[in-house]
Amino acid sequence: MDKYKEIFQGTAFSSKSPKEIQILKDHLFCINRDGMIEKIVAPEDPDFQPLLDAYQGTNNFHPLAEGQYFLPGFVDLHVHAPQWAQSGTALDIPLYDWLNTYTFPLESKFSDLHFAEKVYDDVVSTLLANGTTTALYFATVHKEASLLLAEICAERGQRGLVGKVVMDDPQQNPENYRDMDTHTALADTEEFILAVQELSKTTKQGVYPVVTPRFIPSCTDNALKGLGELAAKYDTYVQSHCSESDWAHGYVKNRFQKNDAFALHDFGLLREKSVMAHCNFLDDEDADLFAGTGTAIAHCPISNAYFANSVIPIAHFHSKGVEIGLGSDISGGFSPSLFDNIRQAVISSRMLEDGVNASLPTKDRGVQGSRITIHEAFYLATAGGGESLSLPIGRIQENCAWDVQIIDTKLPSAKLPIFDENEDLHDVFQKMMYLVRPEHIREVWVQGEQVHSR
Amino acid sequence: MDKYKEIFQGTAFSSKSPKEIQILKDHLFCINRDGMIEKIVAPEDPDFQPLLDAYQGTNNFHPLAEGQYFLPGFVDLHVHAPQWAQSGTALDIPLYDWLNTYTFPLESKFSDLHFAEKVYDDVVSTLLANGTTTALYFATVHKEASLLLAEICAERGQRGLVGKVVMDDPQQNPENYRDMDTHTALADTEEFILAVQELSKTTKQGVYPVVTPRFIPSCTDNALKGLGELAAKYDTYVQSHCSESDWAHGYVKNRFQKNDAFALHDFGLLREKSVMAHCNFLDDEDADLFAGTGTAIAHCPISNAYFANSVIPIAHFHSKGVEIGLGSDISGGFSPSLFDNIRQAVISSRMLEDGVNASLPTKDRGVQGSRITIHEAFYLATAGGGESLSLPIGRIQENCAWDVQIIDTKLPSAKLPIFDENEDLHDVFQKMMYLVRPEHIREVWVQGEQVHSR
Ligand SMILES: [Zn+2]
Ligand SMILES: [Zn+2]
Repeated sequence: MDKYKEIFQGTAFSSKSPKEIQILKDHLFCINRDGMIEKIVAPEDPDFQPLLDAYQGTNNFHPLAEGQYFLPGFVDLHVHAPQWAQSGTALDIPLYDWLNTYTFPLESKFSDLHFAEKVYDDVVSTLLANGTTTALYFATVHKEASLLLAEICAERGQRGLVGKVVMDDPQQNPENYRDMDTHTALADTEEFILAVQELSKTTKQGVYPVVTPRFIPSCTDNALKGLGELAAKYDTYVQSHCSESDWAHGYVKNRFQKNDAFALHDFGLLREKSVMAHCNFLDDEDADLFAGTGTAIAHCPISNAYFANSVIPIAHFHSKGVEIGLGSDISGGFSPSLFDNIRQAVISSRMLEDGVNASLPTKDRGVQGSRITIHEAFYLATAGGGESLSLPIGRIQENCAWDVQIIDTKLPSAKLPIFDENEDLHDVFQKMMYLVRPEHIREVWVQGEQVHSR
Repeated sequence: MDKYKEIFQGTAFSSKSPKEIQILKDHLFCINRDGMIEKIVAPEDPDFQPLLDAYQGTNNFHPLAEGQYFLPGFVDLHVHAPQWAQSGTALDIPLYDWLNTYTFPLESKFSDLHFAEKVYDDVVSTLLANGTTTALYFATVHKEASLLLAEICAERGQRGLVGKVVMDDPQQNPENYRDMDTHTALADTEEFILAVQELSKTTKQGVYPVVTPRFIPSCTDNALKGLGELAAKYDTYVQSHCSESDWAHGYVKNRFQKNDAFALHDFGLLREKSVMAHCNFLDDEDADLFAGTGTAIAHCPISNAYFANSVIPIAHFHSKGVEIGLGSDISGGFSPSLFDNIRQAVISSRMLEDGVNASLPTKDRGVQGSRITIHEAFYLATAGGGESLSLPIGRIQENCAWDVQIIDTKLPSAKLPIFDENEDLHDVFQKMMYLVRPEHIREVWVQGEQVHSR
């Protein structure tokens, strides 16, 4: 009897809805050869004991130790992979200097495939070690290095969605770091799409090409139009930045006499498979357009504190039916951990609700109803990310991929503060959300394959 | 030749001023038998080679490996030690419920010394593992358990400043968790002060008693007055909460027709050795009173997001000459790490500067000039904490205690993203500030003694 490729036994936490978690206590998780969760069996189920008898003691049976738990792997919707090399630096300087003095010179070095390999290998393995099983990446303008990033994801077992960045406007981009011209930008993008689609055929967990205009200010109209056409032709993912800051929001309004969202839509760039980073300055009409087109928001709470001049009203956009996930935005955000971003998402939402300026009267200080709970932030990092990408990931339930992280709350070097043997599992969940560090993540699995352990 | 007890060799970072760090590259740090830094020797100094010749290869010589650095140990100015047992839970509920449903029932359990020992032992070792070499603790109302916390600090080698909490008002506190009456509250406090002063005589790194009214709302006038007198009589530290939230600020104004700061001052509770937590709602006169009396602010940025209804204007209060350090505020803040609080202090200050509500015009959104840099946040966690406590700690310089953490940036399980062998040390510093986790902290020393390693 080896119907299933692997069976795991233990307690799992997963989102039931944005506000509620589901706790599957001491269940069996039966994984098939495709790496999907084929069946979840509760202890009281008649199948439970026969399955235990058949698999217990075999190499395919994986029981969790006491104090260990399953969480869904995280979905990081916004990572600039090359910027990992500068993560944590220069966050005290203005955006313009940050881009021109630090970021563009760094990204231009990815024409060197040897350097690219060093950084990309490290960022993919670092994200896996932080529990991120799926990541939506900006690479650089370089076609070869971007393909290398997709290959590294494929090899390392991470579900990677990768974009070769387009920034073709000679007026807006540095001479030594941009696409040669619009035609080349589009031709390179098309070749990149075909190469990644080819690579995906032999990649169990999937790798996906992503049409990636950096943001409207760095692209010509012709490039934006051409990219929209490529996205339709190959039915690809699309990613960009949208209405991030006062400056970016104002720039697009100036150029097109409309908001970023509608401008992107005119170019065919808002689709079911589109994910837009930040979106702090969306108005209600923009949000409706997102909901209508199935475009998702990649909320990057750490990065936003540095570069977005505001806190995005997540609760409000959620209530309007917009799909939302979390992004680390390395290196606008310094942390490769979505745990850190979950925490900051809650904190930022509370600051939006309460306001920040103590010298204002309470009632004028904040925006009522803005807070999200730790459960909602967890939802964004997992199920919300899966919905944003229209993939069966981000939940521990039947017919989802077995993408999980195994958390050890009793690690001798850093045990969580659980002093009661019978502590309520809802409290254990919250302690994990707030206190897990990478060292607590003992194993990471993607599509039924182990991709990290320590 | 064994003039010094230990000599360390390596590169150290320490604050030169709130805005600037000093980098001591490949220096020798000579520690005497009292655990003080007696001499720091630069490579170009004529004493350098003779010292190397005399100590190299002995057990007292500690050279750092490549990629390792010294940072000053952190000074955590606000920790509720008993609340470690609930850290990370219940942060989504209002303060009143949080206190009455979670916090007071938990604190009341510290009448059980066995339970107290389990939690206190764990919180002290956890803070040490997070690089916190000095901590200012609230214990509980229980005299014995509070003394136990001081004893555990003494044994484990942490510099602990510990307060038995006073909350004597029968109207304001739960029946099963408060001082029996005002007289007992003061008598217990006096006995506690004497016992800790006795303990300190045999404690190399020092332990200190702290007069600790929980906050004005939980104390009677007589208790507050008596505590001020005890602080003067024994020249002790004082800690409390001050003007934390809209509610607390308003309560005191109502009761005394003045702000918290002036009310505390009337009771003799603002002194050179006073540290007040939060202080978000201080006005300029309050701040001047703080500066004039030498009272310090314990800024708790993570906790404030949950309970303080605002962001404290740190840059403004710094410019007015108020001493400020950082506090974790376990468990109003979930994290035992001052690294996490350093990061949040920067993030919160940027949110105060830029504002949070994107629907307001830019100019009305935030408070100009509010941001602090990562260097200033590091200063708060180290030198600022030392100044707040009037102790020679928080800096790596001659005549300061050897309280340090040794950071490994090249840990195989979690190396920092440093891809350039010759990366500027200012960038290395920033990467450490933003990306160090507990596992990077390989050793912690307090007063010349090793108190943690991994
Ligand atoms: Zn971005
Ligand atoms: Zn407190």
